[in-house]
Amino acid sequence: MIITRKDFEEYELRYRTTFINSLSGYRQAFLIGTRSGDGFSNLAIFNSLVHIGASPALYGFVCRPDTIRRDTLNNILETGQYTINYIKSSDYKKAHQTSAKYDREISEFTACGFSEEYVPEFHAPFVKEAPVKIAMQLQQKTDIQLNGTILIIGSVERIEMDDTLLHEDGFVNLTSADVLACSGLDAYYEPKMKGRLAYAKANQETKNIPGY
Amino acid sequence: MIITRKDFEEYELRYRTTFINSLSGYRQAFLIGTRSGDGFSNLAIFNSLVHIGASPALYGFVCRPDTIRRDTLNNILETGQYTINYIKSSDYKKAHQTSAKYDREISEFTACGFSEEYVPEFHAPFVKEAPVKIAMQLQQKTDIQLNGTILIIGSVERIEMDDTLLHEDGFVNLTSADVLACSGLDAYYEPKMKGRLAYAKANQETKNIPGY
Repeated sequence: MIITRKDFEEYELRYRTTFINSLSGYRQAFLIGTRSGDGFSNLAIFNSLVHIGASPALYGFVCRPDTIRRDTLNNILETGQYTINYIKSSDYKKAHQTSAKYDREISEFTACGFSEEYVPEFHAPFVKEAPVKIAMQLQQKTDIQLNGTILIIGSVERIEMDDTLLHEDGFVNLTSADVLACSGLDAYYEPKMKGRLAYAKANQETKNIPGY
Repeated sequence: MIITRKDFEEYELRYRTTFINSLSGYRQAFLIGTRSGDGFSNLAIFNSLVHIGASPALYGFVCRPDTIRRDTLNNILETGQYTINYIKSSDYKKAHQTSAKYDREISEFTACGFSEEYVPEFHAPFVKEAPVKIAMQLQQKTDIQLNGTILIIGSVERIEMDDTLLHEDGFVNLTSADVLACSGLDAYYEPKMKGRLAYAKANQETKNIPGY
């Protein structure tokens, strides 16, 4: 089937949101942990992690200022710190539940069944149950004028994960920790690895990296 | 294990790139098709698709101006048009091969075994073998000063895919078309759906959407 811009611009709003969002494909599901200056912790699921660069190590994510995830954004802008926590695939319902509208005074950690964990000299809470925990420091807020969304870019400051996830060439094997993937606003996946491929060279056959 | 910023900043460059890149998790693998003003077609694999918004329908991707994917960027800036093509999981080796360094005069379509497909009034080539083909119009180029990368944002103009992928609430089911996911620079995955979850509400149990 062919769907033109004219077609989908006539779709009913919720149908259209589901369509355009799920069409954009598979992504990393992650929980952002924050804490306000006055000590209220917050946890919210996001799905727009973007690798910006490795040197310096920068990750971005996109958010809308007018959604229920506003607490996350406010806390990051106020404190400069946040955590990225990957989700065990068996925790997908608890993680999804963080997208519900809770009052600012209610911590989604408690409401959704996750445990807060802190490390010295870092203000934002980690998710104790997360197989990968990343401490982030805000570096840049970029306003996207086209539709009022915001790209938040932060530097990777600290990573905690099981030793076995890190392979000998630096590759992080998320499948061995059952890390959850997602698409759209409500679909969750367990990826199964097909393989890793060696650096591609023109006029040479594509080769698998042994062991994957 | 705990890895601090000080630790990974001392990693050897290639190890560090693999580490930070694969740590950023699962993503959509896609081929960007472009054609220069003087008619040279180009195809390159990317993995940084970002959903920017549904109304208007905007997708972004991140690229570095100094890589071998420079042809893609130049063609987009010159013509304003590009295509996003998802990859059948069985085509993962051919898709990875487009990351090799080919001369500008050599089309990665031919070199890697994909077929060009055109539609009226659109300059950029689609990948005939792709289960999902999206025509994009450049809307904005944002320079990320922190590390010299570029965020390209385009509007979705036209989608072509099999009827069966589109479900009754607007959800696009990519698993039924064996669409490929990836992580890092060389790892490829087939996602398996765990389920879709209903819109979350505070103080209500998380519910599955029936049929998933």
